[in-house]
Amino acid sequence: MTYCVGMMLDRGLVLMSDTRTNSGVDNISVFRKMYHWQVPGERMIAIMTAGNLATTQHVISQLEERTKAPADRHNCLLEAPTMFQVASLVGKLLAETIHEREHFNGEEGQGRFTASIIVAGQIKGMEPRLFMIYPEGNFIEASYDTPFFQIGETKYGRPIILRGYDRTMSFEDAVKLLMVSFDSTLKANLSVGLPLDLLVIEKDRFEPLHARRITAADPYFQQISSGWGEALKRAFYSLPDYSFEE
Amino acid sequence: MTYCVGMMLDRGLVLMSDTRTNSGVDNISVFRKMYHWQVPGERMIAIMTAGNLATTQHVISQLEERTKAPADRHNCLLEAPTMFQVASLVGKLLAETIHEREHFNGEEGQGRFTASIIVAGQIKGMEPRLFMIYPEGNFIEASYDTPFFQIGETKYGRPIILRGYDRTMSFEDAVKLLMVSFDSTLKANLSVGLPLDLLVIEKDRFEPLHARRITAADPYFQQISSGWGEALKRAFYSLPDYSFEE
Repeated sequence: MTYCVGMMLDRGLVLMSDTRTNSGVDNISVFRKMYHWQVPGERMIAIMTAGNLATTQHVISQLEERTKAPADRHNCLLEAPTMFQVASLVGKLLAETIHEREHFNGEEGQGRFTASIIVAGQIKGMEPRLFMIYPEGNFIEASYDTPFFQIGETKYGRPIILRGYDRTMSFEDAVKLLMVSFDSTLKANLSVGLPLDLLVIEKDRFEPLHARRITAADPYFQQISSGWGEALKRAFYSLPDYSFEE
Repeated sequence: MTYCVGMMLDRGLVLMSDTRTNSGVDNISVFRKMYHWQVPGERMIAIMTAGNLATTQHVISQLEERTKAPADRHNCLLEAPTMFQVASLVGKLLAETIHEREHFNGEEGQGRFTASIIVAGQIKGMEPRLFMIYPEGNFIEASYDTPFFQIGETKYGRPIILRGYDRTMSFEDAVKLLMVSFDSTLKANLSVGLPLDLLVIEKDRFEPLHARRITAADPYFQQISSGWGEALKRAFYSLPDYSFEE
């Protein structure tokens, strides 16, 4: 499993992903699921992936044209004229990769190679955009009615985002909100694991405002993880008490 | 879908279930999923069900021997000498009901008639017990390492129970905790719906301490539902702020 969230704010985009992959609980590894590319002053594009790791790595390699010698490569993400075309391209590559592998493996390949992708970014002269790409290659775009997308293990960490999100919030608060959401998920599902990758894309900046890896030793994450339990209990006890009297 | 929780406390057992059944989002109904039986002064037994409604209603009917004329019926739950035997009996009826229906429908019946059951209760001279019964008829029992069971849509409402549960808590606090857990689930999954059924089984009482239906108009539930969002926000803002400085 995996947990990734992409969130749209008035001031830009915030992305967080875990790094655990597993093939059974007895076989876990750390792999990056967040990738980003930039043309300073012109575009900033990020991708997060969930699902079959061979599928998603294949899509990323195709985007970067790793079949060619380094000198001959053109990253097509850096040439697409709009974010809509970026999403279309990623969707096409994802659907083709899954289809090819399933087709090759016949009936027993059905559903085994599936994956989903979040695409986020901005190209100069246009607004920041956030898309969720389905395994079939089609996609949806976030709006302020539904301003965030989650992929992978989405349920444990969803209630706090639904309650805490505000489009005007600061990047710092958005990072805190995502850390709480990830902490709830990490505590409930072994197949989501530290470290986390964090990327903050400020509107019209066209390079990462902030990009880092959050490990288990991160003092701020530790504060959130231990503090949230206490804060939740205080919140719980601040609510009016139930009474058995009607 | 469904959401039911059974929780073991030092002072007894607390059970809550929703009442929504659906066959597609365009076909929803209200059905009771919580049942209880008592022999005053001797035993108090409760069951909550998730899964195929025809399956679970059939199990309940079998337990109450509804195939017979009312005068000839013996509720075998009221005759089993221990809670372990109650759980075994429910497991046997559940597995047989599912197996029979799947077998009758051949390959296309596989998995369509499945269900899970929580059994809770106490028989005089023994401790209160809490079991989760699988569709295969086998079952597990709660202990103070894992003091609650959830069936149905378990994920949205799990983090708050993990953080808020304490075996020494009052029944009133446990009801509040379950209401918060149900509220988070109701807000995230349309297939879990009001009203809720609540049952509190006090140790050595052998009749319900408290049993009622909580509707959308319930003033306490409304207070929890609206207050929890604000309390969560206060909890969130009480945590230390993230800083982009390393």
